[in-house]
Parts: sequence; C-alpha cells; structure tokens
Amino acid sequence: MKFNFITLFPNLIKPYFSDSILKRAVETNLLELNFINPRDFTKDRHKKVDDYMIGGGAGLLIQVEPLELALRSISEKTRVIYLTPNGKLFKQNDAKRLAKFDSITLVCGRYEGIDERFIERNVNECFCIGDFILTGGELGALCVADAISRQVSGVLGNSDSLVDESFENGFLEAPNFTKPNVFENSCVVSEFLKGNHAKISALKFSMSKLRTNYYRPDLYYQRKSYEK
Amino acid sequence: MKFNFITLFPNLIKPYFSDSILKRAVETNLLELNFINPRDFTKDRHKKVDDYMIGGGAGLLIQVEPLELALRSISEKTRVIYLTPNGKLFKQNDAKRLAKFDSITLVCGRYEGIDERFIERNVNECFCIGDFILTGGELGALCVADAISRQVSGVLGNSDSLVDESFENGFLEAPNFTKPNVFENSCVVSEFLKGNHAKISALKFSMSKLRTNYYRPDLYYQRKSYEK
Repeated sequence: MKFNFITLFPNLIKPYFSDSILKRAVETNLLELNFINPRDFTKDRHKKVDDYMIGGGAGLLIQVEPLELALRSISEKTRVIYLTPNGKLFKQNDAKRLAKFDSITLVCGRYEGIDERFIERNVNECFCIGDFILTGGELGALCVADAISRQVSGVLGNSDSLVDESFENGFLEAPNFTKPNVFENSCVVSEFLKGNHAKISALKFSMSKLRTNYYRPDLYYQRKSYEK
Repeated sequence: MKFNFITLFPNLIKPYFSDSILKRAVETNLLELNFINPRDFTKDRHKKVDDYMIGGGAGLLIQVEPLELALRSISEKTRVIYLTPNGKLFKQNDAKRLAKFDSITLVCGRYEGIDERFIERNVNECFCIGDFILTGGELGALCVADAISRQVSGVLGNSDSLVDESFENGFLEAPNFTKPNVFENSCVVSEFLKGNHAKISALKFSMSKLRTNYYRPDLYYQRKSYEK
C-alpha cells in the first residue's frame, strides 16, 4: 500500500511512522510513504500558495494550481481523498474498502480550505473524521492512513487483533481487566476470575450492550433495529 | 493551557507541535506540553506494562499500576480524558467546553486497551473521535488537543477564523474559490465574481444546505427539526 500525502506541513505527518506498528510496516515495505508539498509547485516567487476568497469571506484558501501540479507528480494510478469538515464521515467500513487500493493520495487542507475546483477536477472521496474543527487536514489524513494500514495484510502482528473489536459487531467492547487481581482495593469483576467462559461471555455481552446504550445510543438503536 | 500526554509512544505526539500554529502557541507559552510514559513507572524489570486479559480474549491490556503512577506524577489539578473506541463521540462543543480547563490529561491506550479499573478510579471523560479503529490512542489525543487548542484565546492569529465554520451553524460550508478566476477551463462560479454580497450569501446558503443534505443527512435533519 502506497500513501501519498499532499501537505504544506510534511513534518507533522512523517514522524507518526517513526515508531511502533507503522514503523515496522514501513521497514518491511508493507507501507510506502511519499510526501508532496504544494509549496514546491507554486510559480509565485515568494512560494505563496494561498489567496483571499473570491466573493468575500474571512481567511485564505489554498490555490488550485499548486495542488494540481503536486498531484500530477504522482505517476501511478491513485485514489484521491480530500480531508475536510465538509465531507462524509469516515467509518471503519471505508477503512476496509480502501485497504484494497494499491495507492491512496491524502490531500490535507489548511487555512479556510482549498479552491473547490481542485475537488471537482480530481478528488474521488471527501472525508471528515468527526464533528470537530482541527488546524489542518494532517491529523485527518493520519487517522485515515492509520485505520487503512491496520487492514493491510501483515501490518498487525496478530491477526486475532482484528476480531472482537468495537464497531465490528455493532456494540462497544465490554470492560477488560488484567493482572493484578487486586490493586489498592480495586478488584477484577469476580466472574472473570472463575473461568467459566460461557458465563464470562454472557456477562461481557450484557456489559457491552449497557455501555453502548449509555455512550452511543445512536449505535445501540441502529443495532437493535437490525436485530428485529 | 497545559496538556499532559500519558503515552507509551511520546515520539508519535511530540513532533505534531513542532510546526505551524501549535508550534507558535507552545513558543509563546499559550500551550504547555508534558509527556509521561507509563513504562517509566513499571516495577517490572523488563519494563513490561501489559499483560493478558483476565477471563480470556485476544490481545494485551495496559496494566492499572503503571498508568496510575504516571498520573500521580502530575502535581496540578487536571481533567483526565481517556481516548477509546468505547466512549462518547468527541464533538466541537466538547472542544469549546474543555478549553476552559487549565490542565487536561490525555491518556492513550494501546494494544486491546487498558485495565478498566484505571478508568473507574481516575478518568473524568471517555472520548472516541470516530467510528474507526486506530493502532493506538495517540491520534485521538492529538485531535482532541488540537481542537481544544484552537479555542484557547490567542492561539489562532485571526479571531475571525473561529466564525463561519462548518458545524458552528449546523450546516457544512459552501464551496469556496480563490484566484485565478479561470484555471484550465475550470471557472469560479460566476455569481461570486459579480460582487453582489446579498446574492453571494443567498447562493452560498443554498449550496451549504445541498451539501449538508448530500454528505451529512444526519446534521441536515437535526438542523431542519431545530428550525421548526
């Protein structure tokens, strides 16, 4: 899987691949990274890539030309994704679906965003990672790249880790515990210690439903209506 | 605003503050950063911080003690947030609300998560940034810290940038354009060039509604029912 990042701030993205699971994936060539800075493609002698909005409005936009030339520097066929608050919400199913592409290009906005013509001309999908505003598209691009990477075969050491996860079965995960059994008067749920796996499973499922109903009523009712 | 990050991988977080707006905010002391690694607080001679789940289940959990000791190393009163897929969805209103605290501690999970007892004993809020799975809590912590930082007075250069944004008025933003007026046969919407601001505003509002209905029917119907 090759990721191209089109960003004015490659140094905000690169280091995320310098440790842990994704570092190993890069070292073993399961992931390939390419950083392209639109600033290297501007014809402006001050390397300016942004300008005021036509028709009024506060803030600056990235211009279409440096983005377009940055994209053209990619030689392979690639799926182009723009990270923007004005897109579809990115979900786990998108991560799974996109993991089947060989090359994905993540375009990061800054300031008030980018000229709409770049989107119309080039972008396959617009994604928003959540209903909050960030200083730029870089964290969105990293979330999308991370979620997709985990779905690429071989990236996670233990393939078991892909099952039994939140969202995968429609409910949030039940509470989990590890050693020691007692920490400063806080105990592991006693049923977990008795080792009857049918009982533990049933208890986990109840806790999973309760937690989903509490934190995420939207998911809870979606799943309940699916059961009917 | 002080952010404490409790993480096994501080190098995935630190560099995000080394460029752009957040770098300036750190340099001007509007933001203060503190990184705490639970691995520095384990009594295990191999610096091990994780163990198997009690009662069965694939994968490893971070143990309660190293997390608890890491948290106790913070001397000030702090709001403790745990990033987890099993939490409430983080929204822009949370960013605004949390910007009023003086100190926020972001706890990043890894592997299959953390021992539930740490949450019960210490955590004020559990947040999920979206319905997708990441390799760890670090990107979630960065999203939360970034969204909150933007709300801290002085962090954004131009205070205008906080208004007219997506989510703030319940609809997504309309398309925007900047110079040049024509790029390889792609033109700016002609009404935007004529300069009649009432007409531009009305057109932008229509486009904003259409886009919201297309990409985010959930937000569209929420806003429409609010209008009634």
